[in-house]
Amino acid sequence: MSEFALIDRFFKRVPRDAAVRIGIGDDAAVITPSAGMELAASVDMLVEGRHFLQGSDPVRLGHKTLAVNLSDMAAMGATPRWALLAGALPDEDPEWIAAFMSGFEALATAFNVELVGGDTTRGPRNLCVTILGEVPAGTALTRVGANVGDDVYVSGTLGDAAAALAGLTSRTRFEAETLATLRLRLEAPTPRVALGSTLRGIATSCIDVSDGLVGDLGHILEASSAGAHLSLALIPRHPAVDAKLAGPERSAALQWLLAGGDDYELCFTAPRATAGRIEALAKELALPLTRIGMVRAERDLVVDDERGRPLASLPRPFDHFG
Amino acid sequence: MSEFALIDRFFKRVPRDAAVRIGIGDDAAVITPSAGMELAASVDMLVEGRHFLQGSDPVRLGHKTLAVNLSDMAAMGATPRWALLAGALPDEDPEWIAAFMSGFEALATAFNVELVGGDTTRGPRNLCVTILGEVPAGTALTRVGANVGDDVYVSGTLGDAAAALAGLTSRTRFEAETLATLRLRLEAPTPRVALGSTLRGIATSCIDVSDGLVGDLGHILEASSAGAHLSLALIPRHPAVDAKLAGPERSAALQWLLAGGDDYELCFTAPRATAGRIEALAKELALPLTRIGMVRAERDLVVDDERGRPLASLPRPFDHFG
Repeated sequence: MSEFALIDRFFKRVPRDAAVRIGIGDDAAVITPSAGMELAASVDMLVEGRHFLQGSDPVRLGHKTLAVNLSDMAAMGATPRWALLAGALPDEDPEWIAAFMSGFEALATAFNVELVGGDTTRGPRNLCVTILGEVPAGTALTRVGANVGDDVYVSGTLGDAAAALAGLTSRTRFEAETLATLRLRLEAPTPRVALGSTLRGIATSCIDVSDGLVGDLGHILEASSAGAHLSLALIPRHPAVDAKLAGPERSAALQWLLAGGDDYELCFTAPRATAGRIEALAKELALPLTRIGMVRAERDLVVDDERGRPLASLPRPFDHFG
Repeated sequence: MSEFALIDRFFKRVPRDAAVRIGIGDDAAVITPSAGMELAASVDMLVEGRHFLQGSDPVRLGHKTLAVNLSDMAAMGATPRWALLAGALPDEDPEWIAAFMSGFEALATAFNVELVGGDTTRGPRNLCVTILGEVPAGTALTRVGANVGDDVYVSGTLGDAAAALAGLTSRTRFEAETLATLRLRLEAPTPRVALGSTLRGIATSCIDVSDGLVGDLGHILEASSAGAHLSLALIPRHPAVDAKLAGPERSAALQWLLAGGDDYELCFTAPRATAGRIEALAKELALPLTRIGMVRAERDLVVDDERGRPLASLPRPFDHFG
């Protein structure tokens, strides 16, 4: 199948979004931006053997490839609108591509995201999505803005994806049903888009937890010239991760919880006065939003253990060149 | 060097463009689109061993990685504004990255393009640029719109890049000075951005010649439900390519001229009545704009040889999955 036959079969479509004046099939897409909105733009590249294992289920991979980008929009409080997908593939296996695109499309449809551009080529498997979103002018959530005394929150549970990876690579053992649940978090994360846009005007800073809490909260603290004091006991986790934390695998569990990437939850800061609104928001979205500590002036990150004593060292955040 | 140190050193910068409210260093860039403009968006992925040779000069590669995207904006008549760069690199060689970015930045600066986002990861070398541009609403040049009787034009000369590749891989021989000239066309193409935006309101269709004339003009003809009749003698070429065309390497030279990719010239159609304006435009831009044939109703592409007889077969266009 030629490159152009591939494009016609799998990527070209009649845009559903009236703002897309020209979609896939010309030298560029042409889009009408909405009045009063700013444009949010972000790119993520996923490499086989680094971000996903060879032989990964293509449907889930299609989902995840888009999900990591939607998560960036969530972290900005932006509404994702349009995506461009570039892919290098070792072969033009139509079944693999069809499966990948079904996962990608299902998530795109769920979030009203339109695929407007792309590029396909042969090469070591590599998937690169650029996401474009919109946010009312001047309201984007950023990493800058955390104030001393703000509460630090995270959505959902942390460490699930890293625990799943440890389970899948036999570095630890979970019950089959537990592993299946954790694995879904690793392979088909849910971007917190609704949370992000609702946090506009509430959160003082926000980031998505893609490289682990220590590293990602660290970005907020660096950008905001502040530090934070967290309690390990408060950090929300799956019961299976909690069990490991209390046993001989505590050190691995600490790593998952504090430095595990790929959870795609949001970490944000907000003034204490907004605690009631955040509690209401959690109910409305049916998504746990947990206060895990506080922003402080001393420019370091301290995590107290279950007895209230600071952990002597924090796990190192994930580094793609590590 | 860690991923974040790399970003700080090579990619993060204070945006020069006032429309960039948030640049590199958050979860997404935030940009203020211009009133009355539509947004043009396109992505291109370059893979080592496929789009460029291992060991390619990184400065030129940085230039080319951006140039192929600027060329897509040129083909739409759009003004390129903002770029996102994702790269997989086999190692974090700071010298290579610095050289690559110097080539990328020099071209970006020349075209007032601002780098607003990126992603770096380890992996087989792969460079993916998304370009965002602006075009006055409703004026973008597309592949649709060529009318029967329109003239077919190309800018510059065709086949230079393919000839250079043949020379560099010892499939043919050129004088050293000639090869150096052709090589610059392959490795550091000049995107025809000024031409593209001036063609708004003149050209009825436009595409950039990235996969070869036969294939790219073929896209225009398919989208416009038309055919074309060209004269080989009219197709503008470097004297060295012309010499090969007249000798024993005629078949290779035909391939370069008609199906060689990577020239990044523009191919466009325009009504005969605009011929004078196009001639004036060529002088103004100091860029040859050559009429090579005509759009016709019969839906095929015919290229007459030097004696006015149709070529029996046309070289196949470049196919990234071929």
